Amino acid sequence: MASGEDTLISRYFAPLATDPGAFGLRDDAAVLKTAGEDLVVNTDAIVEGVHFLPDDPPDTIAHKALRTNLSDLAAKGAEPAGFVLTLALKARDEAWLAAFARGLGEDIQTYGCPLLGGDTVSTSGPTMISVTAFGRIPEGRTVRRAGAQVGDLIVVTGTIGDAALGLAVLQGRLTSSNEELLIDRYRVPQPRCALARAVREHATASMDVSDGLAGDLAKLCGVSGVAAVIEAAMLPLSAPASALLDAGMIGIETLVAGGDDYEILCTMPEERVASFMAQAEEAGVAAAVIGEIVAGEAQVRFVDAEGREIALKRHSYSHF
Amino acid sequence: MASGEDTLISRYFAPLATDPGAFGLRDDAAVLKTAGEDLVVNTDAIVEGVHFLPDDPPDTIAHKALRTNLSDLAAKGAEPAGFVLTLALKARDEAWLAAFARGLGEDIQTYGCPLLGGDTVSTSGPTMISVTAFGRIPEGRTVRRAGAQVGDLIVVTGTIGDAALGLAVLQGRLTSSNEELLIDRYRVPQPRCALARAVREHATASMDVSDGLAGDLAKLCGVSGVAAVIEAAMLPLSAPASALLDAGMIGIETLVAGGDDYEILCTMPEERVASFMAQAEEAGVAAAVIGEIVAGEAQVRFVDAEGREIALKRHSYSHF
Repeated sequence: MASGEDTLISRYFAPLATDPGAFGLRDDAAVLKTAGEDLVVNTDAIVEGVHFLPDDPPDTIAHKALRTNLSDLAAKGAEPAGFVLTLALKARDEAWLAAFARGLGEDIQTYGCPLLGGDTVSTSGPTMISVTAFGRIPEGRTVRRAGAQVGDLIVVTGTIGDAALGLAVLQGRLTSSNEELLIDRYRVPQPRCALARAVREHATASMDVSDGLAGDLAKLCGVSGVAAVIEAAMLPLSAPASALLDAGMIGIETLVAGGDDYEILCTMPEERVASFMAQAEEAGVAAAVIGEIVAGEAQVRFVDAEGREIALKRHSYSHF
Repeated sequence: MASGEDTLISRYFAPLATDPGAFGLRDDAAVLKTAGEDLVVNTDAIVEGVHFLPDDPPDTIAHKALRTNLSDLAAKGAEPAGFVLTLALKARDEAWLAAFARGLGEDIQTYGCPLLGGDTVSTSGPTMISVTAFGRIPEGRTVRRAGAQVGDLIVVTGTIGDAALGLAVLQGRLTSSNEELLIDRYRVPQPRCALARAVREHATASMDVSDGLAGDLAKLCGVSGVAAVIEAAMLPLSAPASALLDAGMIGIETLVAGGDDYEILCTMPEERVASFMAQAEEAGVAAAVIGEIVAGEAQVRFVDAEGREIALKRHSYSHF
């Protein structure tokens, strides 16, 4: 009497749901234990043709679906506690599902983030994966976007702009000496979960960069009631991104207004930076000071080494 | 600098997100406070053309998206604590969005279930709404599907089969003397949140009926390691469903193998039934004993008043 949906779940996803609260995916709902901490809740969906390409390897699609959410939890200072998954599929493709489930299983292990439940539905449209992830954090310690203070320094992890370049390479709009690195950065975000504690100990405001550094920083500034100045030369760039910029193949807006970075962007008083950097180094995550919070109303100015403003043509990616 | 996605969120959804933990939808994530209770987590998605029709009123689509999840929470014995929403839209239709948000706002009030966050993405396919809802329940009190005991009576709330008939009416496959009631039952589930406490106080096993009573009960029996006998004459039917059955326009499988009932199906020892029924009456929710748990392996038998088995052609709805 088992339906196709049930066998799909029992074959591919039940083996991943080893947490006791998931009830082996054989119940209506899951149970998450609590102990007076705060739960940070984040939901992010990825759509075929928008956030990933139809021929991206299915395991990387699973990585992207979960990691975009883990990136938000890390930016808030929270440790992963579990997630639920909604999968909207056009058809049942066993090879795709097997690879997708394998990728998901790898991340469940890597990030210690159990699969608690999900829903599988059919759609005539593009494949869509919606994840809601939960993170635990001591009560009242969630680091918000609001909170940046005039004089705070601005820190970003990893490198900026690679994913946008990787997408351009995949779409045949760009060539690079290291296309593999850029494509990997587009397909497989590296959520900075290892920095969650450093963020909650030091940052006054924090968010993850997903729609472009410039636009995302403007949002942080907007809710904090401040403005920002970024020194373009201090932006952390990968070697291929630097090479493309130096060769004039791309402008700086390609790097700071592209999407899919999934790095942490945070602010902190100058005296906190050394401790934050030490924790980042210990965690094996690169981090760089890129500018300063100033008085103003949500403006983000990019300046060159001489302090001259660099005009940007666009700031971020939007769906509508 | 605000993007179209941002104005969409600020115009339609931020006004609904009045819970302090939602940060006005102007942060990466939301915060849910905890106090050592268990959190029941459920995720259910609805897709245009599968779970709702393209010309269903948008406020009823919002009701359905949220209420299918609240129905699961109620069946587990949990009280609504909040939800997050993923909305995948083909295009930005202001009238549709305004009506959808109005419907959502009504339910947030009705069920005391705050909007905590969400994600809005564009899709070339059918509109899809994925909700993840959270419920609070005292530690260890979640009522599972597993737990039904031989000798337990089987109870179901409301009436069964109306939603499947409502869909048939909307699709022009059926006519009825009270089409409005049936269509309303299809479009607007009535989650039995008022019975959450009665369920956790009395039920040995519980689930919500969403894919057809027969198949869903078989799942409950499967994980409980038992079987069930349902007396067909005791199934609670609405007046139009009864009339169609009596007239021979539909068979019993249309009622028990259709989807979208969103009623609670639970089991309990005979001595608990009177208390459960009293609580249900106080809550204004109809409930009926429809059969008994017996020894066996997941079989669900339907019998007539003389105890003769009624053969069913199908048991439930499946996506794949």
